[in-house]
This record gives sequence, C-alpha cells and structure tokens, in this order.
Amino acid sequence: MTGIKAAGQKELKLFSGRTHPDLAQEVADQLGLGVVPTRFQDFANGETYVRYLESVRGSDAFVLQCHADPINESIMEQLIMVDALKRASAKRITVVTPFLGYARQDKKHLGREPISARLMTDLFRTAGANRLMAVDLHTDQIQGFFDGPVDHLFALPILADYVKSRVTGIDATVVSPDAGRVRTADRWADRLGAPLAIIHKRRDPNVANEVKVHEVVGQVQGRTCILVDDMIDTAGTIVKAADALFENGAREVIAAATHGVLSGPAAERLQNSRISEVVITNSLPVPKERQFDKLTQLSIAPMLARAISEVFSDGSVASLFES
Amino acid sequence: MTGIKAAGQKELKLFSGRTHPDLAQEVADQLGLGVVPTRFQDFANGETYVRYLESVRGSDAFVLQCHADPINESIMEQLIMVDALKRASAKRITVVTPFLGYARQDKKHLGREPISARLMTDLFRTAGANRLMAVDLHTDQIQGFFDGPVDHLFALPILADYVKSRVTGIDATVVSPDAGRVRTADRWADRLGAPLAIIHKRRDPNVANEVKVHEVVGQVQGRTCILVDDMIDTAGTIVKAADALFENGAREVIAAATHGVLSGPAAERLQNSRISEVVITNSLPVPKERQFDKLTQLSIAPMLARAISEVFSDGSVASLFES
Amino acid sequence: MTGIKAAGQKELKLFSGRTHPDLAQEVADQLGLGVVPTRFQDFANGETYVRYLESVRGSDAFVLQCHADPINESIMEQLIMVDALKRASAKRITVVTPFLGYARQDKKHLGREPISARLMTDLFRTAGANRLMAVDLHTDQIQGFFDGPVDHLFALPILADYVKSRVTGIDATVVSPDAGRVRTADRWADRLGAPLAIIHKRRDPNVANEVKVHEVVGQVQGRTCILVDDMIDTAGTIVKAADALFENGAREVIAAATHGVLSGPAAERLQNSRISEVVITNSLPVPKERQFDKLTQLSIAPMLARAISEVFSDGSVASLFES
Amino acid sequence: MTGIKAAGQKELKLFSGRTHPDLAQEVADQLGLGVVPTRFQDFANGETYVRYLESVRGSDAFVLQCHADPINESIMEQLIMVDALKRASAKRITVVTPFLGYARQDKKHLGREPISARLMTDLFRTAGANRLMAVDLHTDQIQGFFDGPVDHLFALPILADYVKSRVTGIDATVVSPDAGRVRTADRWADRLGAPLAIIHKRRDPNVANEVKVHEVVGQVQGRTCILVDDMIDTAGTIVKAADALFENGAREVIAAATHGVLSGPAAERLQNSRISEVVITNSLPVPKERQFDKLTQLSIAPMLARAISEVFSDGSVASLFES
Amino acid sequence: MTGIKAAGQKELKLFSGRTHPDLAQEVADQLGLGVVPTRFQDFANGETYVRYLESVRGSDAFVLQCHADPINESIMEQLIMVDALKRASAKRITVVTPFLGYARQDKKHLGREPISARLMTDLFRTAGANRLMAVDLHTDQIQGFFDGPVDHLFALPILADYVKSRVTGIDATVVSPDAGRVRTADRWADRLGAPLAIIHKRRDPNVANEVKVHEVVGQVQGRTCILVDDMIDTAGTIVKAADALFENGAREVIAAATHGVLSGPAAERLQNSRISEVVITNSLPVPKERQFDKLTQLSIAPMLARAISEVFSDGSVASLFES
Amino acid sequence: MTGIKAAGQKELKLFSGRTHPDLAQEVADQLGLGVVPTRFQDFANGETYVRYLESVRGSDAFVLQCHADPINESIMEQLIMVDALKRASAKRITVVTPFLGYARQDKKHLGREPISARLMTDLFRTAGANRLMAVDLHTDQIQGFFDGPVDHLFALPILADYVKSRVTGIDATVVSPDAGRVRTADRWADRLGAPLAIIHKRRDPNVANEVKVHEVVGQVQGRTCILVDDMIDTAGTIVKAADALFENGAREVIAAATHGVLSGPAAERLQNSRISEVVITNSLPVPKERQFDKLTQLSIAPMLARAISEVFSDGSVASLFES
Repeated sequence: MTGIKAAGQKELKLFSGRTHPDLAQEVADQLGLGVVPTRFQDFANGETYVRYLESVRGSDAFVLQCHADPINESIMEQLIMVDALKRASAKRITVVTPFLGYARQDKKHLGREPISARLMTDLFRTAGANRLMAVDLHTDQIQGFFDGPVDHLFALPILADYVKSRVTGIDATVVSPDAGRVRTADRWADRLGAPLAIIHKRRDPNVANEVKVHEVVGQVQGRTCILVDDMIDTAGTIVKAADALFENGAREVIAAATHGVLSGPAAERLQNSRISEVVITNSLPVPKERQFDKLTQLSIAPMLARAISEVFSDGSVASLFES
Repeated sequence: MTGIKAAGQKELKLFSGRTHPDLAQEVADQLGLGVVPTRFQDFANGETYVRYLESVRGSDAFVLQCHADPINESIMEQLIMVDALKRASAKRITVVTPFLGYARQDKKHLGREPISARLMTDLFRTAGANRLMAVDLHTDQIQGFFDGPVDHLFALPILADYVKSRVTGIDATVVSPDAGRVRTADRWADRLGAPLAIIHKRRDPNVANEVKVHEVVGQVQGRTCILVDDMIDTAGTIVKAADALFENGAREVIAAATHGVLSGPAAERLQNSRISEVVITNSLPVPKERQFDKLTQLSIAPMLARAISEVFSDGSVASLFES
Repeated sequence: MTGIKAAGQKELKLFSGRTHPDLAQEVADQLGLGVVPTRFQDFANGETYVRYLESVRGSDAFVLQCHADPINESIMEQLIMVDALKRASAKRITVVTPFLGYARQDKKHLGREPISARLMTDLFRTAGANRLMAVDLHTDQIQGFFDGPVDHLFALPILADYVKSRVTGIDATVVSPDAGRVRTADRWADRLGAPLAIIHKRRDPNVANEVKVHEVVGQVQGRTCILVDDMIDTAGTIVKAADALFENGAREVIAAATHGVLSGPAAERLQNSRISEVVITNSLPVPKERQFDKLTQLSIAPMLARAISEVFSDGSVASLFES
Repeated sequence: MTGIKAAGQKELKLFSGRTHPDLAQEVADQLGLGVVPTRFQDFANGETYVRYLESVRGSDAFVLQCHADPINESIMEQLIMVDALKRASAKRITVVTPFLGYARQDKKHLGREPISARLMTDLFRTAGANRLMAVDLHTDQIQGFFDGPVDHLFALPILADYVKSRVTGIDATVVSPDAGRVRTADRWADRLGAPLAIIHKRRDPNVANEVKVHEVVGQVQGRTCILVDDMIDTAGTIVKAADALFENGAREVIAAATHGVLSGPAAERLQNSRISEVVITNSLPVPKERQFDKLTQLSIAPMLARAISEVFSDGSVASLFES
Repeated sequence: MTGIKAAGQKELKLFSGRTHPDLAQEVADQLGLGVVPTRFQDFANGETYVRYLESVRGSDAFVLQCHADPINESIMEQLIMVDALKRASAKRITVVTPFLGYARQDKKHLGREPISARLMTDLFRTAGANRLMAVDLHTDQIQGFFDGPVDHLFALPILADYVKSRVTGIDATVVSPDAGRVRTADRWADRLGAPLAIIHKRRDPNVANEVKVHEVVGQVQGRTCILVDDMIDTAGTIVKAADALFENGAREVIAAATHGVLSGPAAERLQNSRISEVVITNSLPVPKERQFDKLTQLSIAPMLARAISEVFSDGSVASLFES
Repeated sequence: MTGIKAAGQKELKLFSGRTHPDLAQEVADQLGLGVVPTRFQDFANGETYVRYLESVRGSDAFVLQCHADPINESIMEQLIMVDALKRASAKRITVVTPFLGYARQDKKHLGREPISARLMTDLFRTAGANRLMAVDLHTDQIQGFFDGPVDHLFALPILADYVKSRVTGIDATVVSPDAGRVRTADRWADRLGAPLAIIHKRRDPNVANEVKVHEVVGQVQGRTCILVDDMIDTAGTIVKAADALFENGAREVIAAATHGVLSGPAAERLQNSRISEVVITNSLPVPKERQFDKLTQLSIAPMLARAISEVFSDGSVASLFES
C-alpha cells in the first residue's frame, strides 16, 4: 500500500482584529463558536505583532476587521493576520471587511493620483487572501478590483425595514445628497416605493471647484425626506443637504447610511442639525464620545454570520438577498 | 573591453486592427507617420491570423482597435496583435481602445455573473499589454481594473463645445437619462453652467423589475434639454427619456454621447424620434446603413494623437484636460 | 470551542456553452446528471452575457465548449463562463475543449507572428481555469502551453476500431497527407498493423512556397489507403492527397480525422472527391448544411464522460488509454 | 514612414513621504535637485491621500520614506506613493527605506507567527516597486525577501570612523549585546582591529524564557567597550549590557548603532545610564523630545545621494563600500 | 439534478528521489505506507526522466529528496518530480528537503552575487510546490524566502539529548565555531544549561580577508567543549576551532551538527583531529567511504514522519517542539 | 528643478557559463568585445557559486551556456548566473542556449510524466530571464513554452550549404530517420530540391513497444542519402537507419544534425558505421575523446553574433533567415 486515506473534513474558524471586537463576538455568538484566541502586541516603535494561540492548519479562516480609525493600523494588522494564516497552512482565507478602507479612492479624478482601493485589494491578495467579504462597497465596481470571489452584502434591507417602520410611505421622498450617489437612492426608492430627489451642487463657473448653491432637484415640499448614502464621514455633505431640503419646504429629514464613519465634527454637526434621526449599522465601531441622542445603530452581525455560514457550507450568499 | 555601448533610442509605432481603419489613419496622419503594414487573415474556420510586415523590435507600440461589432472578433484580434508584438520584442505595448468592450459589465448585479470588464483588462495584461488608453470609460473605476497605467481621455470638451455652439445656454438643462448616469450629467452641467434634471424610472412595486413610469426629476418645462450619456446603444433609453421630457414640456431635446454604438434599431428609433440632433464621436465606426440625417459625428483623432504623442515623449496626458 | 467542523464533500457540475449543446447533453446523460441551467444573452452590440441559474459554490466545475464557428465568439463565451465560475466560488474549474481553437498556431513560422495557441491557454488560465481537458491536440506540445494539469484524450481507439471494421487489414496502408502529420499516421499504422506512406509536397525551387507536385512516398498501388489527420478543415489537402493516391494506383481511399472542422467548401469537395468515406467524431458540431452522404460521425461523449468521472473521483485518466 | 524616432532620455526624480523631510531635503541638496512637490492629505477617517504636482511620466523615481512612528502610517503612505507613480507611468520605481519597518520580524520563532518583513517587501512589490534601497537591514537575508534588485548600504564606515576618532584603538573592545548580533560586532572588530566580547543572556532552566544573568563572554576589564547593534529601540538591552560591562570592570562604554529608533523610555534610559556616548545616524528622525545630551547623530544623506546617483547612472553601488 | 455529490477524501502519498532512499524508506515505515513506485532514468546526455507508476491524482504528496552530492542533479530531479506531480493533478505538493541545498547562499556578501537560496525556493514554487518542509535551515530567515507555508523542524532535541547522555553537564561549555553561528550555540546553551564560548577569527588588518588568529572568547579551560553548528562540510572550521579550544586548555571536544555534509577531506580531518566524537543526523546520506569511527549518526526519520502526519491530518507541527 | 536628465545609453555585455567557453569566446570575437570576467567556484558539496567581477548594472546581458554534460549542472549554473544578473540590476537578460536541455521532454507520452522542457523555460523565467535565444529547438512549439520573446535561430543554411558542396544534388535523397522528424527532413528537401524518404519503425503488434523492422518508405536505391535530424545523441537511431538504407540499396549515407550530443557509444558507433560523414555544428562542445575522423563540425558563432547584435540594436533577427 502506498497511500494513507482519510475522510476529508473542513473547519470554520473566525478571527478578529482589534478594531471592533464587539462585532466579531456578536458574529461568533450567532455562529455558535468562539473567536480564535490571538495574541496581539504593539512593539515600542509601533510595529504590530500577531500570533494565534491554537492551531489553524487546514481551517476555512474568516478574518474580520473593521477598517476604522486609525485606519492604516487596522489594515496593516489584518494584512499581518492573513500572512500568519497563510504561513500556518490555513486552507482558505476570507478577508471580512464590513467597511473596506480607501473604498472612496476607487478612481483617478486627476492625473498622478493613486487608486488606493485597488491597491488595498491587491495587498490583501498578496498577503494571502483567497476571498473577500464586504458590506455595501462604495461602488459596486470595487468587486472587480479583487482577483477572486467577493461576497458583497447589502445592509439596505436592514436599514430600509427600520426606516419604513418609522415613516408613513405616503409622504416620503428618498433624497440623494450628491449627483454621485443617485444609484443608492434609486435602490431605496424602489424598496420604499417612494419618489426620488437629488441635491445638485452647482458650481460657480467663474471660480474653479467652488460650489455656488445646493439645488434641490425634485419635489420635497411638505414631505419626509430620507437622505441616503453609503457612509456618513464628517457629515458635512449630509447636513448641508438637509439644510437645502428644509429651505425647500421639507417637513422632516431622516438620514440613513450603512457605514457610520462619523469622523471629526460629525457627531456634533448631526446632533445640532435639524435632522431628526440618523440611522446607521454597526459595520464600524462608534466610540462613546461619538455617540449622540439622534443616532440609531442596527446590527449587521446576523447577516455576516449567515453569509459566513453559507460560504462555509457551499450554500448561496446571493439567495440571502433575493426576495 | 567587455561591453558595447550605444545611444538609447526610442521609436513610436502605430498599429491598427481591422474594425476602424479610418480612425487609425486619421490618428496616423495627425502624428505624421504611417500605420505599420500588417497582414490579417481569417482562416476558414474563423481563426484570426496576424503578422507584421516590418520589424517592431524595441518599438513603443500603440495598438488601436475599436471594440465594434463583431465585438468578440475585434477583441480577440487585438489580443493576438498584442501577443505577436510581445513575442517580436516590442519594448512597450499600449492598448488603445477608444471604446472598451464589455465596459458595462463592470460589476455583479446578481449572483453568479461575470465581471467581464475586469476579465477583458486581465486578458490584455496576459497577452502582454503594458498600458491602456481609453476614452470615457463607462465608469471611472474601470481604470482600477487594469494592473498598470491607464490613460483615460475625455471627449466632454469636444462634445460640449459643439453643443454650446448650438444652443443658447440660458434655457438649456442637462438631463441624465438614468439614475446611474447622473455623474456624467453633472460634469456637463458644470461645463455648460446649466441646471440638471434626471429621468427616474419608477418601478411597479407589485411587479418585479417592471418600470412603471419615466418620472422627470427637475425643471424642463420650456427648456432645451441636453440628454447626455457615455454611449448610445439601442437608443431605447434615450428615446423614452426624450418622450418623457416632451411630455413634461421640454421645448427641444438634443442627445449627446461619446460612443455611438448604435446597435440594432438605434438609427431608425433616433431618426423617428422628436430628438432634433444626436451628437457622438467617431470612437466607433458608424457604417453607412446606421447613419441618419440627425447624426453629427465629431472626431477624436486629434485628441488620441496628442495623447499618444505625450505618452511617447514622457509628457503629461493630464495636462491635456486642464483648463 | 473555536471552530465548526463538517465533513468534506465535493460536487461535480457540468456547464455548457452554446456551440454544441447536443454533445454536452450526451455527456450529461452518460454521467447521469443535468447540464447546469444557464442564461445566455447577446447584447445588441454583440457582447456576451452569462449567468448561472443555480448556486455553483464549492463545485468541481467542468465547462464544455466546442471552439466552433464563430470561433472567437465561442472562446470568449467560455472565458466569460470561467470568470463567472471563479467569482461565484467554484472550487475547481476544468475547461473542456474537445477541439481547442487556434491549436494550429502553435509556433512561429515567420518573424512577428503570434503563438495564438499559447495565448489561448494563457487566457483560460487568467480567467480562472485550473485544468484543461482536450481531445487530440494538434501537437502534443500544446499540453505544455497550459500552466496546470492537462487531460489529453485520444479518439484514435474510437476511429481506428471503426475503420478496422470497414477494411481488411491485409491490403490497407496508412497515409499521412503531409510531412508534418506523420506522427499521427505512425500511431494509426501501429494500431492497424499496417504499412505507412506519406504525401510529400515538393516545392518548386524556382518559385517560393509554390508546391510543384504531390509525391507519394511509400507503396500504395492496389491498396486501400487510410488518409489520417487530426482535423479536416477545408479538405483541400486531403482531397489533393487522395487524388495523388489514386494517381499512384490506390484502390480505395478512406479519410479519418478526429475533428471535422469542415469549413467553407469542405463538404462539397469531399462529397465530389473519389474518397469513399470520411470518418470523424462529434468533437465539433456539423450543421445540417455541411453534412453529406459519405460522412460518418462517431461520438466521443462516452469517452469525455468517463474522463470527467475519473477526474472527479481522483481516478486515472491515463488508464483509459492503456490496452 | 511608419515610426517616429527620438533619442532616449532618462530623468531622476526624488520623492519623499512625510516622516523625515529633512533627510530627503539633505539628499536632494547633495544631488542638486528638488524633491518633487507632492500634495499629502489625511482624510477625516485617517485615510492617506497623495498626489504629485508635476508630471512623473517616464521618470527614474526614488521614493524616500523612513519607517518611523507611526510606522504603519508611514509604510502605507509609501505604498500609496508607489501606486500613484506606477499609474502615472514612472519608468522605474526604487523604494528607499533607510530603516525598513518590520525587519525584526524576519522569521518564525514560534508557530502561527507572520513573517512580516517578507510581507512588507511583497507589499512594495505589489504596489509597483521595481527596486529596493535600504541601510543596514536587520539581517542580510532580508535582501532575499524582495523579488528584485536590492541596494544594501552600510553605515559602518560612517559610524566606525567617528568612533575611531573618539577612542584610542589600543584598549577598545567591541561588544555584541546579544548572541544574535555577533556578526555585526565581528564586522566592527575587523574594521577597528579590536578584540570581541559578547553578552550572553543565560536563561534560568527552571523558568521558561526567564533570563537569569547577563554573562560577559570575553575580556572587558579596564577597557573601552564599544557596544554595537543595528538599532537601538527601547534601549533596554543596551543599557543592561552596559551595566554588565561595568560590573565586569569596563572603563567606559560607548554605544553605536545605525538606526536610532529610540522608542518609549529609550532617551531617558540612555541619558541616565553610565554609557558615555550614543552614536547613531539620521536614518530615522529623532524628534526634539527624544534627543538627549549624550546623543551623536551622523548623516547618511551623502551616502544615500551617492548610491542613488550610481543607480541612476548605471554605475556601481558595491564600489562605494570597497576599500 | 445537476450535480453529483461525493464524500471528500484525502490520501497521503510519499515520494522519494534517488539521493537517500534509506531515509525515505525509514519515514515510510514509520508512517506505515510504501514509497510510491517511480521510474527514474538518466538519458545518455545526463537528462533526468521521472515517471510515477501509479495514479497520484488528488493526492496529498510529500516529495522527499536530500540535496546531496551531486547536488544540482538532486535538486533538478526533485524539481522534475514536482512538475510531474503538478501535471498529474496532485492536490497538494509538499517538498521535503531535510537539508536544503544552497542554504548558505542566503544573502549577498559582495556585489553581483546571486542569492541562490531564494532562487531555489522560487524554483520549487514555479515547479508547483505548495509547501516546504525542512530541518534546521542555515538561517531562520530562509523560511521567508518561500512564498507559502514552511514547516521548519529542529534536530536540536535529538542531538542535545544524545550529547547530554554523553557528558556531565557540570563542566560542559557550548562553543560556537564562528561569530555567525552564535545563535545556534545559544540554543544549545539554553537546552543544556551550559555556559557559552565562541571562536573569534581575528583578521590581519594589513592583509585583506586573512585570518590572523582563532581567538577563544569565553572560558574553556578544563572543560568539555560541545562545538555546535548547523552543518559540517569540509570540517576545516570545526577542526581549527577544536585546535584553538585545546590550546586554551579544553579537556575534551565533541562536535555536533544537524547536517553531515562531510565533503572532500572532512572524514579524514575529523578522524585525525583531537575531537573525540562527531554527532550528526541522517538528514544527508553518508556513503561508506565517508564514514569513520568517531562518527555517530542519529535518525530524523521519526521526526519527519510525525511532522508529515501532522500536516496531513491538519494537526500542529509547532506542538512537536513545545516542551 | 526637480529632476536630473541624462541621455539614455545601452550596453551589450556577454556572459558565459563554463560548459563551452570556446564558443563564447568565438562569439565575443565576432562581436568585438570580451566576455565579462566572472568568478566561478564549486563548493565542496557541489554547490555552484558565481560572481561577476565588473559592474553589470543597466546592461543588456546575453548569458551563453550550452546545456552539455553534466547537463543539470550546466542548467543550474545558468540559472544562478541569471539570478545574479537580476539582483545586480541588469536591464534586460537574454538566455542564450544554443542547445536547450530537456527539449525532447516537450510533451507527455504517458500519464504521470513531467513536461521538463516547459519546466526549464519556466525556471529561467523565474530566475529573471526576459528573453530566450536558441538554435533549432527540438520542436518549434517550445517557443511557445517561454513567456516572452524567443529568438529561434536555424543552422539549416550552415549545414545544408556544406552538404550541398559535398554531394551532387542529382542523386541525393533526404531521409528522416523517424516518423517524428519528417518536418526537419522536409525543410532539407526543400532547400536541396531533393526527394524525401523516411525510415518507418514498424512495431510488432504482438509485443508492446517492440520495433519489428526498420522499413524504408521512399526510393533510396543507388542514391546518396542525407540522413537529417536535429540532434545526434547515442547515434543508435541514426546508425540503424543507415543500415536500413544500405540494405535498400543506398549508395552512400551522410548524416547531418545541428546538435552533436554524441553521448555514450555515439562516437564509436558512428566511426564504425558505414556512414561516410557526420556533419554537426559546435552548438555543443565535443570533447577530444568523442571526436572521430568522420566528424565535421561547423561553427554557429557568426550566426549567434549576428543575432545578438540585431537584438541589441533593435534590428531584425527574422531577416537573417530570409533569402
């Protein structure tokens, strides 16, 4: 006899970086397993060190990390985690980035710019990632940046169902805060069966890049406006959009977005604005100091857990989003 | 002495596939050179054969091919041309695709779809392309699909300057025929200093994927509407959009797009529509039988020639589009 | 507990492009499964669209496509099918090309030619193919073009057993129609235990590339000649070879080849020739208008099904061809 | 005529990240050129943005970045700079990292660790780096991590010449603070013509990883000890080594290292130690608050400038270090 | 039904090149299987030919080859073995090189040298190796040369336990024969709880590369010295080191190393030296004519077998070396 | 000013391995330069070491090595030479292999064989080769194995012109010794304007792989037979072929081949045969002990020199073989 036969077996293991352990734990709970114990250490000069405290050989590894501030640290930590898994003979490595960093740098606006979103997907590939799982990528095309399978999940059902329960559909209008995000608003409009409006930033033809006026295109008078976007970062755009809506007679404004980046002045701006409610998911951690009364955060953990489970069991992720 | 020294020299050579020889000739004329003589042959079973009739060794090769019907033939022919250049020791190979085929398949809408736009850029890379030059890619993100430098050229100045000369800016409105193309309309609005409107396809919530009504979002009453898009394929969308504009009181409708794909019923539809003029470029050949009275075709050959020249001489392509 | 264990499982799935659905169905029937339902669409400008209508995640995928006219379409369709499988997380992708397109362009005869056969195998690799299965490659060396395992199947047993049943071995001679195909004829001679002859095209030394005379090297007087080749394309070579054989006293001529490309005038030429029977396989579809009385088509479906089954079950493909 | 010929030309351009602009400026001054003006921006959520303000097309680009605290930021910034250069058609990209981050993680000590030094070189390769230039890599083997040419520069001549001018060779001993750095000490010993000693950390066999005693192997009684290493990070090792040397009768201790990482308590520890002088280079910036009286910093800018110049002019870098 | 399901299965197969069949057989015996029967042939001009005599499809293949004299032959043979496995559809290929050839060429000492150790790991990767297993690599960093998982095994427990049984720990000193191997000696010192000494080759400052004197750094007077290294090649270093130790009063010298390369005059030198015992493993074959009385050879076969078994069963190799 | 401009320059450098220094010197003389001085060393355990003794930075490097016995040594030496050039920043590396080793293993005859010819081209690519130059590859398809430009040179003009001067064309017949080499004979027949014959090895149908009889197909009675092949290895085939020709009435037999491998009994067999002259080139060294009276060796050095010169100066290699 020249061979030893054994039954094939596969094992799902969940790994988590340090930026959003609560989300990882919630996903683990949903899956009914524990996050793999991992030693993290920052060397004195800032270098990151990672070591897994149990064997990962042959595992179907899912590495969850939210690309949150400090974002370069969190990306580098995840790259190093993937490298360690590759060298420790994990069988398949899926990078799970509920919010993918640098996704907004997905094209060259001007000459001599990077396309950092493509760079990031290439870096993960180089480190050893076989697959990518992400939620509401800034543009759908980013799926095509990664040279391998991408599981693209959508928070729209979670967000829209919540918003639906808050407003009477009759007088609601979905509003895109920007000419570049109309596609997202269109999907919301479809789901809510509501009309669409957009905020158009007219530029001053005499001054380069100078926005002259936030023009509302569409009917908002006396209506409840749902301002939708994929993310809320500094909230500057969204608050100016809300102001323009109120100036045009809107009755109420609710803001909804998948990713609550909430950088810098965001929390204060939103709290002080006339927006009545800001609805986001927990795709990014929201530290205490950035939380505020009007904020509602919905969990994507059940969705992530179901998607991971489908991937592991060769089921269908697409079917999770079919009505 | 162990080495032989010689002064470095570089040589620009222009190659053309068979889909749009007129454009190639026009570019060659602008550059003041001839297209490299090439033998093309179709074998009896349809296989394409290509051979260059002069040495291409060490050349800075630009391979121009329009991805026109039959589109798979034209792409394969260009891939084979690139392979032959690589094996014949061309120094650098730039694929020039004024219209890049499959650019609309740049994402997965549904599960189990390809991302054919990424596939095409990968195929060119595999064949040996070092660089890519294209005009008005369907989405900017496609730049990030190619693993190398992309020179992205814009026909907007050519198209908009012509349209400006046709309309008085005062009563013009730029219209996006679709929620997904508002970004393009926004650029036109900026350049013309005109307001923006969009056509919103409201779907019937009771019937999946059924469009109920083409709703005009924005003011078009009594105005000259410039319907803009990156391409006009079967012209179905654009004609329905024009109808909706007239129903909402538009005075005149002009359609403008970079790429005149003009497939199937497009010519007839446009000619029979109430659209007064259809402005496109010659990024794609328009065979006699698809030409019609209302059609205006502007040449991109000078722009291509300048860009190729800048690339060859290590100049700046970005500067061609700075005002 | 930090992992979820499950038993490994594998699943064979068969996919088919649109060029030869009958062969795919026959293979599927032999395997006792159904071809995966797939939506194909040609966009108005000729772009191909593919989507699988059921989950393919984790599958051991075999993608059958015959590279038949229009050959570039059929190759591109298969490339897109592979891309869609890769992105949909198929576990392993085997490209099955009973007739591999461009196989004759497997070398540079002259300077500045492509090596399109290598290009094709690279394109499939880039799209995501892990393995290649083909029947009677034009030259054995093409196996070495693909960077991965190639299952090379041989139709010789199928063809030769049929021919044997038709002729009495005693007076048969195997004839190569060309100096370049003697290896194939040699294998036939071995299998039939018959002597060998070749047709040598003597060129006119005074006129470049001008064939002066088809010289028969070997004894054919009064014999039944089996003219063998890997493919019959326009049938020009084979018919001229047959003429030369009859001029040299052959009693009967039978032509046999694996691939019936049968381009252009082939059917008419063969029907009108003095060849008594033309034996091919169904590695390529033969449309009604190219069929003719003398044509015999043998099925390779059982062989393909057995080979696919061996690959799936980690058996041995080599053993299928051992006597 | 089918080609346009032009004389080949090359152009050296120097780029600098934000961690150590003084060093870049010094190198630029030595070369007699200016650092390419570059726009850096940190988005609100911490994402880095880079754009070059002049054309870089066709340039021989040298991208200088010191991997200093915050180290992951500085590495990511350099990766993005390289990506932008690649997409802007730079001809050749050399990454210049006087101190290469993560160089200490150059092997697996334990199971399930990353090899982050290899990962970093791979990331730079993926981003588009063709070449790497570094000073005193933690181990020489790291040269082999990068898949391309590495110019490895040595600060030993700079450091040793300075130290030589400070001590009379007669009574000096070169000391390695650790069993793993004896190779470095050996090179110093050779250059200074001095004997060697090492500090051996004996571990307590009863307690895992517990160092029992710092044992001095070699003669140090009454001698001036030159404690040498490639870098001084927290200075814990070096200060303990100095203590052991004084306990064994050393007359004076001077510490010398190429890279002054000087993390955390390093400055205070060194200042308060009995070490009389700490000699480092400016391969890393030393912020004001980490500077201290005993610190001597020597410039590597002339060496970097000469090496860059040799690379650009196809000269010899090796010859810079031949005596 | 569109798919055929089957239970996953895996099969370990062991392959052996021709340089050390005894070791392979010993490993096979430990694992309880047979080495896969393989046909080796050397063509008349020296080309190597390999063919496996049973199906290897889908197997988890371990390819054992010792890189022994003629070393280039043995490496090439293993590369060809890997290629044949890749093309025969082995599922996973682990290259097992108890002694990895060219490991000493792991860096550039001088300009214009190769880094052959990296080259070798790249060659194996190119041939198709997915994993690498090796014993006591010359430097740990070589793990980082291979782009994939490396199982690094240590013979220290085997060697040290034997040596411990031979000497009373009380008066033993571990000695590094060279400044570059102190790390190895340090590990021995830890394991034996013994002090450390090193042989320092002082060079003549007046004559380049001329070693002046072998200086013993540390206390060896009246002690049993354990001279340790990763390999003994020509034994020149080790014998000179032993001489220096005796000159400094050592009582006895034992030499220990993992790899007994024992080239050229090694056997004679060692036999004629004052070294009392030379302890090595069977990581390399020791032909009869190189064996000598003082030589003790310990088997690593049980360790290799356990490691292979752990890899096959997704166990932990790291755990084999945890105390 | 932010850049330093300089005129581009290129420098041809010729490198030679150790198997055939005479040929390298002859090529160098033709080119009017010297072979780059190189230090070669064989370590005691057989490892090869290479170092260039002058700077090679930026050079257009041609690395000549004949793959002669010991063939694995010579290939490995060339791989290491390429690696050293890559790491020393050569600009372009062309591997020149007048005889490419393993070229006969260019396909799988049987299951579980390697395709070593493809492996070799991949190994050279991995080591860093950008281009390949070879003479009379065993099959033309091997050009397609290398992923880059291949300059394929032909010795036919050199050999045939010599043979022509020896025989009167009138009564000459070109003979292929084997069904697999008819293509080569066909080219000779064309060039000499002579008829063709082949030796057909009929196998015994009752005994596998047993050759029953060497059958001459074609007319040889009373004629001067030119037995042609790409190489003569052990000369078994060629001598048996000659015997068969004489048995069939041949008047004289001359053997011609590009590559004189002349392994084992070749020299003796040929000298003792009835063949009157054996004509080969110096693509391989023929050591004194393998030379014999009937042997004529023609030099390919002028052809190699011209081809190298054309490649360096961006001329045309194809034109060297156009009449």
